[in-house]
Order: sequence, then structure tokens, then C-alpha cells
Amino acid sequence: MKLELAKGVNDTDPERKLLELKVTDTLRTVFELYGYAPLDTPILERYDILAAKYAGGSEILKETFTLTDQGKRKLGLRYDLTVPFARYVGMHKNLKLPFKRYQMGKAFRDGPIKLGRYREFWQCDVDSVGISSMRLDAELISIFHDVFNRLGLAIIVKVNHRQILDAIMQKAGISNAHETILIIDKLEKIGIDGVRKELKEKNISTKSIDIILNLISIQGNNDKKIKALRKELGTCVGLDEMEEITRYTNDFIFDISLARGLTYYTGTIYEVFLKKGEIKSSLGSGGRYDTMIGNFLESKEKYPAVGISFGLSTICDALKDTTVKTTTSVYVIPIGVDCTEVIKHLRKSGINTDSDYSSRNISSNLRFASSLGIPYVLIVGSKEVSHNKYTLRNMQTGKEELLNLVELTKRLL
Amino acid sequence: MKLELAKGVNDTDPERKLLELKVTDTLRTVFELYGYAPLDTPILERYDILAAKYAGGSEILKETFTLTDQGKRKLGLRYDLTVPFARYVGMHKNLKLPFKRYQMGKAFRDGPIKLGRYREFWQCDVDSVGISSMRLDAELISIFHDVFNRLGLAIIVKVNHRQILDAIMQKAGISNAHETILIIDKLEKIGIDGVRKELKEKNISTKSIDIILNLISIQGNNDKKIKALRKELGTCVGLDEMEEITRYTNDFIFDISLARGLTYYTGTIYEVFLKKGEIKSSLGSGGRYDTMIGNFLESKEKYPAVGISFGLSTICDALKDTTVKTTTSVYVIPIGVDCTEVIKHLRKSGINTDSDYSSRNISSNLRFASSLGIPYVLIVGSKEVSHNKYTLRNMQTGKEELLNLVELTKRLL
Repeated sequence: MKLELAKGVNDTDPERKLLELKVTDTLRTVFELYGYAPLDTPILERYDILAAKYAGGSEILKETFTLTDQGKRKLGLRYDLTVPFARYVGMHKNLKLPFKRYQMGKAFRDGPIKLGRYREFWQCDVDSVGISSMRLDAELISIFHDVFNRLGLAIIVKVNHRQILDAIMQKAGISNAHETILIIDKLEKIGIDGVRKELKEKNISTKSIDIILNLISIQGNNDKKIKALRKELGTCVGLDEMEEITRYTNDFIFDISLARGLTYYTGTIYEVFLKKGEIKSSLGSGGRYDTMIGNFLESKEKYPAVGISFGLSTICDALKDTTVKTTTSVYVIPIGVDCTEVIKHLRKSGINTDSDYSSRNISSNLRFASSLGIPYVLIVGSKEVSHNKYTLRNMQTGKEELLNLVELTKRLL
Repeated sequence: MKLELAKGVNDTDPERKLLELKVTDTLRTVFELYGYAPLDTPILERYDILAAKYAGGSEILKETFTLTDQGKRKLGLRYDLTVPFARYVGMHKNLKLPFKRYQMGKAFRDGPIKLGRYREFWQCDVDSVGISSMRLDAELISIFHDVFNRLGLAIIVKVNHRQILDAIMQKAGISNAHETILIIDKLEKIGIDGVRKELKEKNISTKSIDIILNLISIQGNNDKKIKALRKELGTCVGLDEMEEITRYTNDFIFDISLARGLTYYTGTIYEVFLKKGEIKSSLGSGGRYDTMIGNFLESKEKYPAVGISFGLSTICDALKDTTVKTTTSVYVIPIGVDCTEVIKHLRKSGINTDSDYSSRNISSNLRFASSLGIPYVLIVGSKEVSHNKYTLRNMQTGKEELLNLVELTKRLL
């Protein structure tokens, strides 16, 4: 038997897992601070649900893992948490709206393996259904800032609005808005000349291109951009909503060229990037999808919805420098004595304690504790036990102190 | 489209999920207290790994969900966390032993649906590899007690030893030990007469049955049982190890009829039950499997291993009375004013805050907050804002108080 992982998945070793837990703990704290409740849905969904007309779409469906259960029912592994969220809402007719939920769990896509794309990955989402107010959108921007502040990462939140993009397309007389917007979205990557070139290749007239490039190049702060666009576009719900958000927060950049998830986003669009550093991928994103749930549920009722998603893997990459190797505070080395009571005392005091179980000698024990990154080692011989004085060694400085149990607990807590 | 769940899986609504999180948080805290490190492995494994000779065995393999990726590789959904643990150990040749890890994640079995059996379920495991010492086994017993103490559940830890069962079989001259032990394991359920009857049906001689029933009926505390068995069985590693454990802890019941996981457990066996109450299923279990990893890895090296597993679903059932509906502390109701600043202040102070976003009237807001189980409601009108005095309503007592922001924060923290 060959010991091998499935393609496109990976093991998460303790060091990386501790980092993931730091991030997911932070997310959970902040989500709950903003009044979101945890929900869990199964990884296994009926294939019909995943393949529904207003679910993830045909591109995603191609990458959906399928399987059958013993009753020959066709199932799939969920490819996101949004479709299960919509299904949950539809199946709980008595659910009180608005419903604000967060969910963190694995999702699966059987896609081509590229750098940083996994077939099994964490999805960390916060969404609400039943709220149209831009106050909630403004809060999502605050959630981004709260999360990354706590994690010590300096970020920029970029915001745009689907209906502003649509209005620009209309003004420029573009028929194939979708394709054109995807090119505009590349502005940061390929520059204004690159965008012009690609638009030309799509046989868009020079006049239309000029109108578009003029509008998406508008400079200034958010207010200035909104005012300038108002002049050009006239009445536009997108601009109204963008303006409303600025009344609650201005801690974002109105980026007129930002586009994502065009198939389902209907209003605001969000994307978060590091202010500086090597990582250019987004750390989080989201937007409003006011029609998706209603369509999915084939319902006449309205289900306004908005949510953001955090890229756990990219965030962990950005936090690499803050890695800790262990949560263990002290490693106890018994020298020919039974340390059960000392260890019990430490743990009872809430100190994460590991110990040697194999009667190895001091130097191999020190090497072992050091390889695990444990900050302190406690050396316990019969003299130490009888005098209630233990040798605590700081593994970084090499400094040793003689402490009794009370002092020890104080030092290590 | 019919909105339906896959068979044998379920949604976990916020109330239940909060309970699950309470349990998994407790598990994590205690596991780290005892020096265990978190590990995560993929849900998708190569089928060859799951089907390996010393993996889960043919019964489990029948219930394994299989699928293929786009490269036509045969994969399976993991049915436990132990086989992936063994694979991880084998794939990390530089892993420092002993390796103490915990892992919590979903596992899958396409089995028949019975009450309480799900096809997708949480597995919460703590295991170590590389340690033979019974000191570690004693610590696992302590982990059980620490976890359930913190959760407020009174439990009994039952312990037995595979090699004691084997010695009893030998003494009774039983050839088909496995089958016989499975009958003995039913002692609590079917009583001594039931066991006698079933053993008879297997054509076991009356003499052998008498020997077995005599031994498994030995009464008294752990020491007495060990001494009595020593007289009958003579030299027995199982008894030596059981005796060693009693030197570290006596907080368990040596249950001579306890049997589980006979195909892979080689030494100690653990099972935890509630002291009283309706729930008779075990809340956790485990044991030593000193040969499984070495066999699985086709290695000549020894990989002594021991671990315990917590039944999240059963534990949550036992904790049903302690359910909380929400983690939100206060629900803010704006009366024609913008409450953004008040809400920001509360959240900045660390108070989980939700709010009305739809300008509903007070009474429907009160009903909504009450349906979510939020303990406090804050009513904010223009007078309140200008006087910095807000009406805080205790939703349980109906009592209202006028408080300024500082007092408010104190009250809600």
C-alpha cells in the first residue's frame, strides 16, 4: 500500500492548525459580537439541491463531487455554504426573519489543482436573510475591520455596487455587460491600457470604451466619486445605496472597477486586500444577493440577503509570522520519581502541561521539549519533591529558577 | 425541486450548534491542558488507505461512501479519524514521537438509519502514539473526568483490559474467544442468566460457562477484583497494567465484562456512562491499540497507541437542559433615530449586540427579541440619545431601567 493523500487535499499539522484555530476563534467572536448565530449543515447534500437552477451554476456543477448512498440516491459534496443556507431557509417555514447566521466548515470542488486551490477547503461565511437596509452592509464592512484588527493585519475594504456597473454599461450602450464587466475588473492587474486593449478586442466602439474608462477612472474620496458618478449616471439605486453606506461608515474604498460573482450578486460587492505585502489574493469577499434565495426556493416572497466570506487559507498565509508551535506551557521531566501529583496540580491550575512518559534522560527530554517549542521545562527529582522546590528552565534563555508549587503556578499562568 | 436533506444527515440549528460548540470548546481546552496538539486531516482519503488490511475492517468498508475525482482516482469519505491518524504518522517520517494529537471533525458511514445513528457525524478524538506507559492511560481517565466535570455531568468511567478477557477465555478453554467475549459484554443488558443462556446456545460447556461467569461476577473495589483475578489467572500483563493504573488513579470502575473494538484493541478498554438518567448509551470510549499502526504501516517498528473518543451527539443530548438559545446579550430597538454609535459602543465594549434593521414597531421588535431568547432589549429614541439615558428592559422580568452608556456597559458585560 502506498501512503498517499487524495489529490488536491492536505493534512493540517499542529502548527498550521493552531493558526487556523486562532483565525476561526476570532471570526466566531466577531460574528457573535454582531449578533450572528452559528448554523451547521451537512457536507452531504442531495444532488438535486446542488444542481438546482439558481444554485451554484453550471461551472461549479462540473466540479462537484458526486456519490450515491446505499439507497442509490444521488448525492453531492457541498461546493459552498450558500446553497445549503438557502435550502435551510426554505425548509424552515417557521424561521423568524431576519435570520443572521454564520457557518464555518469544509467545502469541496473537484477542480484543476493550481497553487493555492484545494479540492477540500474551509469556508467561513457570515450571511443574513430578510434585511434590505444598508446599515447591515455597513456592519459587514465593520466586521471585516474588526476581524483583521484583532488579527493584526492592515487591510483595505473595497466596495462597489452591481447596479452602478450596470448603469455604466447602459450609459456606454454595451449589450454584453457581463463579459465587459469581467474585463473592467482586471483594471488593477493589467492597467488602463490593458483594459482598453481587451475591450477593443471585443469589438466595443471607441466611444463606448472612452465612456467606460472615463467613469471607472474617477479619482477622489468616496463622496467625490459618488457625486461625479451622479452627474454622469443620473438616478441610480446603486449610488443611493453607496451614499447611504457612507453615512454609517467611510472605512472603505469605493472601487468603481470592482466586480465579482456577477451571476448572483445584485447590489453591494465587497473584497478585502492586505494594505501591503506579497499576498495579492483577496482575504475575504462578498456581496448582496437579494434574488438568489427567492429564485432558488421558487418563491414569490422576497428574501433579501447579503453575506461575506473569509479566505481561511490566505489569511493563515498572511499570518505565518505569528505562528506558535504549541499551546503547551511546560514540559515536566521526572528524574526517577513519580510526578503525577505535580502534574495534576499544574493542570488543575489551568496550565497546559505535557510530560515525559518514557523515562528518557534529561538531555533527550530537553531536545524533545525544544523541538515541540514548549517554552518551559520543569525538572523534578526526589530532592525537589521533598523540598517542594522545582527547577524551572526557560527554554529560550536557558535561565533556571528554583520555585515552589505556588510560585511555579504564578510564573506559568 | 423538492427541498430535502440527504438521508441520515441533519441540519444543526443555532440552539443545538451552540451546545455542540460548548462541548467542543471544553474538549479542546482539556485536550490542550493535557499537552495534546490539534491535527486536521482531509475528509477525502484515497480508497486504498481506507480499505487497507489493518484499517477499519470489512464491516466498516461496506458502509464507506466512495467516489472518484476527475482523474478517475477512487476515493472514500473517511469513516473515522484513526486510520487517517495512522496514515499521517506513516507519511511523516520526521515526526517526533511520542506524538499526542487531538482531532475533531466529521466522519461518514453509509449504514442503516437507526435512532441516533447518522451517516454524517462528529468524531472527537484524542490519541497518542509512542507511549506505552500506563501513566498516560491514567491521564485518559482523568481527561474523561475533567471534561464531564466541566460540563456538569456526573459519569462513571469503566475500564477493562483485553488481555484479562483473553486470559479468562484461556482459563475457560474457549476457542472462539471473540464471539464469546461479545456475549459477555452484554452482561449489564441481559443479566447473568441471559449471558448463560447465550453462551449455552454457542455450545460452550457448562464447566467453561461456570468459570467465565464466576470470574466476571467478582465483586468489590478495583484492588479486590485485581487480587481475586490474580489468584485465578496467575501471571497476566493485563492485571499488571490494571494494577499500575490504580497507582495513579482509582477514579474508575474495573468492569471485567466490558468489551469493545475487539478487532484492534490490544490492552486497556474504556467506556463512559452517565451515573443516572435516561441516556444509557456511552458518552465516550476508547482503548489501547498497540499493534494497529505498525501493522497498517507494514513497519517493523513499534507504534504503541492509545486514545479515547467523545460522542458529541450523545453528550449534547445529555446536556439538553443547559441549552442557551443565543449568545446575543442585547437587542437594540431604534425609535426613529440612528443608533449606529450606540451599537458601535456596545460592540467595542465586547457586548454581543443585535438590532432591528427594518424600522419595525416596538411590540413586534420585542416579540422578535423574545423569540430569539435575547435577555435584554435597549430602546433608543431621540430623547434617549440627547440625554444619554437609555431604557434597558430585562426580557425575563420585564423590569426597565434608565442607564447611561457607561452604566449600560457595566450591566451587560
